[in-house]
Amino acid sequence: MTTADVRALRELLPDGRVFDDADVLEAHSRDRAGFCPAGAPAALVRPRSTDEVATTLAWAHRNRVPVVPQGARSGLSGAANAVDGCVLLSLEKMDRILDIDVSEQVAVVQPGVVNGVLAAKVAEHGLFYPPDPGSRSVSTIGGNVATNAGGMCCVKYGVTGDFVRGLEVVLADGRVMRTGRRTAKGVAGYDLTHLIVGSEGTLGVVTEVTVALRPAAAQPLTAVAFFPTIADAARTVDGYLGQGYRPSVLEFMDRPTVNAVQKIADLGFPDGMEGMLLVQSDRGDAAPADLAAFEEVARTHRASEVVVADDPAEGELLMAARRLVGDAHEQLGLTVMVDDVCVPRRRLVDLVEGLARIADQYQVQVLCAGHAGDGNMHPVVAFDSGDEAETARAHQAFDAIMALGLELGGTITGEHGVGHLKRRWLGEELDEAALSTQRAIKAALDPHGILNPGRVLPDLP
Amino acid sequence: MTTADVRALRELLPDGRVFDDADVLEAHSRDRAGFCPAGAPAALVRPRSTDEVATTLAWAHRNRVPVVPQGARSGLSGAANAVDGCVLLSLEKMDRILDIDVSEQVAVVQPGVVNGVLAAKVAEHGLFYPPDPGSRSVSTIGGNVATNAGGMCCVKYGVTGDFVRGLEVVLADGRVMRTGRRTAKGVAGYDLTHLIVGSEGTLGVVTEVTVALRPAAAQPLTAVAFFPTIADAARTVDGYLGQGYRPSVLEFMDRPTVNAVQKIADLGFPDGMEGMLLVQSDRGDAAPADLAAFEEVARTHRASEVVVADDPAEGELLMAARRLVGDAHEQLGLTVMVDDVCVPRRRLVDLVEGLARIADQYQVQVLCAGHAGDGNMHPVVAFDSGDEAETARAHQAFDAIMALGLELGGTITGEHGVGHLKRRWLGEELDEAALSTQRAIKAALDPHGILNPGRVLPDLP
Repeated sequence: MTTADVRALRELLPDGRVFDDADVLEAHSRDRAGFCPAGAPAALVRPRSTDEVATTLAWAHRNRVPVVPQGARSGLSGAANAVDGCVLLSLEKMDRILDIDVSEQVAVVQPGVVNGVLAAKVAEHGLFYPPDPGSRSVSTIGGNVATNAGGMCCVKYGVTGDFVRGLEVVLADGRVMRTGRRTAKGVAGYDLTHLIVGSEGTLGVVTEVTVALRPAAAQPLTAVAFFPTIADAARTVDGYLGQGYRPSVLEFMDRPTVNAVQKIADLGFPDGMEGMLLVQSDRGDAAPADLAAFEEVARTHRASEVVVADDPAEGELLMAARRLVGDAHEQLGLTVMVDDVCVPRRRLVDLVEGLARIADQYQVQVLCAGHAGDGNMHPVVAFDSGDEAETARAHQAFDAIMALGLELGGTITGEHGVGHLKRRWLGEELDEAALSTQRAIKAALDPHGILNPGRVLPDLP
Repeated sequence: MTTADVRALRELLPDGRVFDDADVLEAHSRDRAGFCPAGAPAALVRPRSTDEVATTLAWAHRNRVPVVPQGARSGLSGAANAVDGCVLLSLEKMDRILDIDVSEQVAVVQPGVVNGVLAAKVAEHGLFYPPDPGSRSVSTIGGNVATNAGGMCCVKYGVTGDFVRGLEVVLADGRVMRTGRRTAKGVAGYDLTHLIVGSEGTLGVVTEVTVALRPAAAQPLTAVAFFPTIADAARTVDGYLGQGYRPSVLEFMDRPTVNAVQKIADLGFPDGMEGMLLVQSDRGDAAPADLAAFEEVARTHRASEVVVADDPAEGELLMAARRLVGDAHEQLGLTVMVDDVCVPRRRLVDLVEGLARIADQYQVQVLCAGHAGDGNMHPVVAFDSGDEAETARAHQAFDAIMALGLELGGTITGEHGVGHLKRRWLGEELDEAALSTQRAIKAALDPHGILNPGRVLPDLP
């Protein structure tokens, strides 16, 4: 993409949409994944309408210019990193909530709406948008859709895709496509909606999202339990859910993570524990019994202490502490790489025990927190990136964690996506027929390969 | 497909798999959709393993022979009807439940497992497989997946696709592909699982299904309410759900439907009502309050009577009556065509009032029952198929119902699928970009167009 190209694109769009200042481009060239290469973008486009997205893509399609869609760039897999000579297509300015339909329990939003903003807005109407990625205060619905983002709610409510009813998508060649529906059900034709959800900007650019909402849940009741070993915590998760309980939150933190969090916010947690679980029930009158059953299972697995929060504010404080995990890990004074394996729940114990072996084998620190109720854990490899040998070992540990996840019957990514970070691992998880089918779909929808090249599928440019 | 072809195929498969007796073929050439053409099949293949499916498809792919996958042939859109010279590929003998994982709350089944058999089997383990199409006593999981079948549970629990975690699929060329996962979450690559769900046998043949289960729900509490007009019943649905209630069942029947059902099973329903609602709550201790709130809304909308069932057996009797609707309509002594529109809930009132106008305009009987809580109704056009003019008017009425559904912001098919019956209507619902994307996907996955040709997508052979 040349300077003339930038000029040509600028002429097609209203003023104030196309930027090519070096500092602006630099500031937009990466998401939050460490160790993912970022190229040098040629321009940043900030469209304000579907038409402008369509104009940009039609032009890029004609001129074979790569396009990297971006939201808040809070992703953790490098899917929003620039590639050389690309147009960065930021959807952040398309941030309007177009409709909240209270009786139908549906909202229609532009992709740049921040998750937490939508959640707060629908809550004003007594409604509930459950998907709650850790980044919800900054991440956008468009990015959530692109990665099929999860969060803490998933153990009870499901992931982003479970709430997406329909999309407006601009295809690679600039045509505008509507998928899905606004109604509760609908089976007219292939499910393009869920093909686009989780496709990380490689099949089309989402310009409008219709999401299902739920009635507001009851104020949750919260408990924490502390365990002498992380294996005890893992067994409690399996034991509790195996009895048929569906907590609205069931999160795990290991001791090093708790210690890191306590440096930011002192929670007064006890010493001498190796792992903790944070559980919530939002079933109103049934919540105390839910938590009593949790306590019983936790005690069976040697919990040293189980504390039920006295009031909602205390519960919210504990949840806030859980949300600090990412920041806490980043403030360890080390470089961190966040993994995202998801295993069958009963293999959680093998996963956490395996992490200790991996830390030992590669001589790096491996901390762990995660959505234990889903079997979706975020082991964090922490290391000194100034030390070349340690950095190499850290990368090996990161890979070993994915290999362990697969060995335990799990997936390399529960909710963060493949992006660039895990691309070369996709073939370890999927069979050749699935990979080639995905390649065929990519070729059918984006024949010139302009949409977010080098992401998701291995062995494509 | 010649006799020599049948012989060749027979040689590739074990004994007792390939049939070409005229009466067997005739008996397998149709599903339960009326007025859908059925061609003359050349052979029926009953594979007993994924390998045998793969062998059959690889052969058909090489020889350009059309293949029509079939389950119990209980579908209502002609998607399982034979096409001339095809292989009917019946998955009915692949009917094993391969695994029920109680702690993980997952089951792995072959496609020929009957829905009701799976539901009963997991119930023995205290688990719950919610998707419950009206045909559940005969329809298979494979067919449910192919159509993304709904049922009465959907208002609270969702449709078949919401419970499908992963699939084994034989592609058109005979390669075997695994999609999805067994874990609670996973975002490794494009969501091929939900692309296959609802694709009605046109993109691949499902040979194994991994479904999510839930803990058994509490015994439901049941109520019925009777209304002086169907519009009052429709307004009650919107009013009740709009307050944030999520009943586990919310079904509608109009007076002619109730009368037809009462000819089979006398329910002692009152005279002088025009519509009834059947509601259940399975929220245990909260159920009485749920139904009391329902009663209040129903009374606001002039319900003449609201009866809460005294015991579970009585509730089950009412549900059984609802399940008789299909049979009752078939015993009217008239030919029936079942429609499947789904509209936003608040437009239900416009839908039911529009049906009366359509019945009047085309001088045919239009009965109506359906999953009112989803806005998914099954208007039934009943007519004398011996009368050519009336038959023509019935077809016009059937089309007018779909047009009305679209006009009200709904879909032409909420849960039955497009099949052959609604193929020419798909272009009325989807835009050209969505249609062409679907065609491109079909071409990518089935380049020779052998899989269930003439189904779903218009303008393809």
